[in-house]
Amino acid sequence: MDGKLWAFENFLTFDTLYGCGAVGFAIDITEHRQVEQQGERLRAELAHMARVQTMGEMTSSMAHELNQPLAAVVMWAEVAAQKIRLGKPTGNDDVLKVLDDIAGQAYRAGEIIRRMKDFVRKTEPHRTTVEACEIISEALPLVASDLRHAGITLDNRVERSLPKLLVDRVQVQQVLLNLIRNAIEAMEDTAADKRRLRIRAQARDRVVEITVSDTGRGIPKDQLDCLFGTFCSTKFDGMGMGLAISRSIIEAHGGRIWAISTPQQGTSFTFTLPIPREEEKNGT
Amino acid sequence: MDGKLWAFENFLTFDTLYGCGAVGFAIDITEHRQVEQQGERLRAELAHMARVQTMGEMTSSMAHELNQPLAAVVMWAEVAAQKIRLGKPTGNDDVLKVLDDIAGQAYRAGEIIRRMKDFVRKTEPHRTTVEACEIISEALPLVASDLRHAGITLDNRVERSLPKLLVDRVQVQQVLLNLIRNAIEAMEDTAADKRRLRIRAQARDRVVEITVSDTGRGIPKDQLDCLFGTFCSTKFDGMGMGLAISRSIIEAHGGRIWAISTPQQGTSFTFTLPIPREEEKNGT
Repeated sequence: MDGKLWAFENFLTFDTLYGCGAVGFAIDITEHRQVEQQGERLRAELAHMARVQTMGEMTSSMAHELNQPLAAVVMWAEVAAQKIRLGKPTGNDDVLKVLDDIAGQAYRAGEIIRRMKDFVRKTEPHRTTVEACEIISEALPLVASDLRHAGITLDNRVERSLPKLLVDRVQVQQVLLNLIRNAIEAMEDTAADKRRLRIRAQARDRVVEITVSDTGRGIPKDQLDCLFGTFCSTKFDGMGMGLAISRSIIEAHGGRIWAISTPQQGTSFTFTLPIPREEEKNGT
Repeated sequence: MDGKLWAFENFLTFDTLYGCGAVGFAIDITEHRQVEQQGERLRAELAHMARVQTMGEMTSSMAHELNQPLAAVVMWAEVAAQKIRLGKPTGNDDVLKVLDDIAGQAYRAGEIIRRMKDFVRKTEPHRTTVEACEIISEALPLVASDLRHAGITLDNRVERSLPKLLVDRVQVQQVLLNLIRNAIEAMEDTAADKRRLRIRAQARDRVVEITVSDTGRGIPKDQLDCLFGTFCSTKFDGMGMGLAISRSIIEAHGGRIWAISTPQQGTSFTFTLPIPREEEKNGT
């Protein structure tokens, strides 16, 4: 092939309900940079597909999350209107309170919708300087309804003083959301009073370490070893490649991801993200 | 194999970005009824997966559709509160109008969310007696924002007097939505003043015939022939099997689906659904 060196690079393997497959590309290894860019684009494309799938799966819980403030708005507006129509005494203060509450609830619903939209937006991968606690607190509204519905206590103690990170915010939130959804699923058989989702973030050496722990059924040793490859996936979760994509995202950020599990006790997933050197902090 | 007759039945073939595949099952053809039930379940499962995928893809347009009434609610509530705070004259009638408008908009947003939720709900396939015009009018809010955004005129003339159908309402809406989304995509290059989506429904012999027409780029003859098989799909739309699933749904209902296209003029997709005999109308 015109004297150049070629290699076949296997980018991501996966399995679905229908069988197994792999995404790869044949590359001219003399043009390494080009390959890196292709890899980045392909990773972003796959990550976007998985986010779209996730958001589809979350439609019911998002609908539930949005219905609450909307139902409150309709009810308050109708009750206030009814009072006025019946000539019951309503001072300006009463009306003001209703209007403020209404605006607040509608704004809350709007915020949830904005987060949903951001999450599925198709953009070029783009790293910015963000706080770890911000990434986490922004992702939580998307699973709030699922946590409530499953009766899971959230134990979120993330220090505000952590070093800033240089990451693609949406992609890291995608990893977090994936881990949290897995955790919720793992606690299906846990006694109601023991369902606890713990989120921790701490600085350690040159990385920030984020851990998501559940009190779920745990993962058997043999499955743990191949968890982030996708051929051993035991379930059809979306495109069947949530954890493989999570690993791909974290490694592209220069971090690592791993799991520790004790059957019947629970599982902890931890990923690291490198703390950028001072000169990197302006973004790429 | 213990003296029974076995056959391999190929249920659905598909292709995705990653390759091709097929879903099928080996069956004991002595137990035909069981097979029918398996087929029905598998079809329902695949159809549900595709709806979830579609809803994920529609998150942005749904977000847009929901943001409009919510932004109106916030604005009206804030403007009214501001007037009261500034001591400007606001009679009961003013306040009542604002409260009514707010309740109306919040209710509208709630309805959209309810439709989204119904669309992705996982239920056993269930046929009920419904009006053709109702199926269509309920599906339209889910694409209203996409139509507006693409500047497409909707020409929806469906008679209210059509015979009732006995169908799985959500599955038929899934077919409609799929055809409408394809139509929108097909009109991307159409001159802005010529973008028109036409929906027609009419009774003919023993069927109701529903047609979705666009004024888009059209489909070349060679692609038209294999449109409802999925191996010739030219794009990665969701799971890459929208039309194959649509055909599967329509045929399971005892109907047919086909397309007629003139390149640069547009495409019409038509599907039929049988008019139930009087004694079938109580549902299955």
